[in-house]
Amino acid sequence: MDTPDVRILSVGTALPGPALDNAALARRFQMDALWEQWIDAFVGTDTRHLAVDLESGEIRSSLAELGETAARRALESAGLGPGDITGIVLGTATPDQLMPATVNLIADRLGINDVPTYQLQSGCSGAVQALEVGRQMLLTGEHRNVLVLGGDVCAKHLDVTLDLRTLHPSELVNVVLFGDGAGAAVLTTDPVPGTASIRRIYTRLTGLNRPPGQSVEWFGRTDRHSDKQAVNEDYKAIEESVPTMSAEIAKEILEDLGWQDTDVDYLLPPQLSGKMTARIVAELGMPGAEEITCVRETANTGNAVPFLQLERALPQMTDGDRALCVAVESSKWIKAGFALEKV
Amino acid sequence: MDTPDVRILSVGTALPGPALDNAALARRFQMDALWEQWIDAFVGTDTRHLAVDLESGEIRSSLAELGETAARRALESAGLGPGDITGIVLGTATPDQLMPATVNLIADRLGINDVPTYQLQSGCSGAVQALEVGRQMLLTGEHRNVLVLGGDVCAKHLDVTLDLRTLHPSELVNVVLFGDGAGAAVLTTDPVPGTASIRRIYTRLTGLNRPPGQSVEWFGRTDRHSDKQAVNEDYKAIEESVPTMSAEIAKEILEDLGWQDTDVDYLLPPQLSGKMTARIVAELGMPGAEEITCVRETANTGNAVPFLQLERALPQMTDGDRALCVAVESSKWIKAGFALEKV
Repeated sequence: MDTPDVRILSVGTALPGPALDNAALARRFQMDALWEQWIDAFVGTDTRHLAVDLESGEIRSSLAELGETAARRALESAGLGPGDITGIVLGTATPDQLMPATVNLIADRLGINDVPTYQLQSGCSGAVQALEVGRQMLLTGEHRNVLVLGGDVCAKHLDVTLDLRTLHPSELVNVVLFGDGAGAAVLTTDPVPGTASIRRIYTRLTGLNRPPGQSVEWFGRTDRHSDKQAVNEDYKAIEESVPTMSAEIAKEILEDLGWQDTDVDYLLPPQLSGKMTARIVAELGMPGAEEITCVRETANTGNAVPFLQLERALPQMTDGDRALCVAVESSKWIKAGFALEKV
Repeated sequence: MDTPDVRILSVGTALPGPALDNAALARRFQMDALWEQWIDAFVGTDTRHLAVDLESGEIRSSLAELGETAARRALESAGLGPGDITGIVLGTATPDQLMPATVNLIADRLGINDVPTYQLQSGCSGAVQALEVGRQMLLTGEHRNVLVLGGDVCAKHLDVTLDLRTLHPSELVNVVLFGDGAGAAVLTTDPVPGTASIRRIYTRLTGLNRPPGQSVEWFGRTDRHSDKQAVNEDYKAIEESVPTMSAEIAKEILEDLGWQDTDVDYLLPPQLSGKMTARIVAELGMPGAEEITCVRETANTGNAVPFLQLERALPQMTDGDRALCVAVESSKWIKAGFALEKV
């Protein structure tokens, strides 16, 4: 059977509040110039946008709000209204609540109703998984335009009352590594000229017998006052594994498509941190491709990352240009990515 | 294009611990015979299986453990090994952790690797959503056997230290309404004789401008000691809406297939409680169909429900028999269901 062509019709993104630089972060947490230099040298992130107001500790933007804004921008850019959307998929590691699922609150805010909605629980591969579920919906022939979202709001993990001077570097890094944000894309099977065709989406769990690189607990009524640690990360394992996994993802997608390294015009690498992204890009070894990186300005925005990258890459792409996106989920080691071609 | 036939090859389920009857529950919480009668009259549930040990308060079974057991039973019944599974989808409202997603821990336990995995965050419609995502994966032609799971473990919501005598009936009902469990099914496009073909899967968000019927918070590092309420339910809204929504779901699926009420041989209705299920079945008005209900024995097991019903219905169905399953998610009002035909 002939597989229809699934295209990215438009993209929109949303970041909360003003850009917060390292100096402002240092002032807020009473840290010194050495700490600022440590962020630059060790993490490589200049600014980030946070959903929590660092002064008051109040949550300024929920994931539902950011998702709504990103989706409105994507819909407007596509010239579509809520009635044109036949399904919605959201990928996130940080839903606002367990129930209702945030995807349904975003639909409500957008005025979208009477369609299937899916919310995928996933780390940094969730946006790619959401794109794949959206693509599969379109391939059934039962959909016309599917809205795909990804985003994360880390407010419930970011304790603004912390005394950073007492923290171990492995905990300290979490304060500067992550930013909040959301992104959205409209996928369609309409053959709209000048859009990017999805040539391949790749997502594979590769965690068999491997301990998690990251674990994040949620607490409920019975265990909320327990002393269990909320977030655990094995940065050594992440540092060791992610560059290699990224190279494997790129190789597998390109081989599958019969593309060469030199066919890739735009490279959208994982955005763990400025430093890690530089290491990954070196490992990927595609000097002919233009790197699309936003981590210095936005920090690691989790499931918003591929949308922030697409928003930068798509307007630059001309007919026949090819783009490769690579993403790694380090909690249970998911390899993910996709390949686009402007047609 | 010709849509391939997606079939349910096998089903497996898992319930934690022994069946716990109302008398045992009454003894444990020092409630009287009147309370036992109230459960029977108002809720209509005789027994349930709980993942938490009511004496010690310890969690006896995680969702990952229950999911693994259910999946092993489904795989064994299908005569398949872990290497035969090309993708996994789990629907749940109560993942063990936020990260890693529980679906990936289940895969690890089963020895399944190098496949796409998806975890859908959803209430009582999550199993149907998971079946639909599994069906869509198979329709791409890129999969052979997809493992679909649904389940819930309410341990983090069930406080065994509560003094039930101080609770308002609207809170008290939560203690007796829910049970824990998981289910699994193997979907395939292999035309195996004597299996049930999926004729339609239906899932629609219908929550536009409607307040949630249920909301469940998760707490993280920063807000775990806040006094925000964890679970809120609007039982009046649920009682009023679910029977009507169930009738609409049945009508829409049947109309879509060109089936009559009298064509349905087995009816798998929502399993909110014994009393509610009876009201829903009356509203559905299909006296010719055999009702497949388990809520008196298992209580409301959330996303495990359709698998527990399928496990009872499928062995009874003979060639040409038709089954209709109806599910309602009341947090943001999702209508869901599916229709099967034994072929």
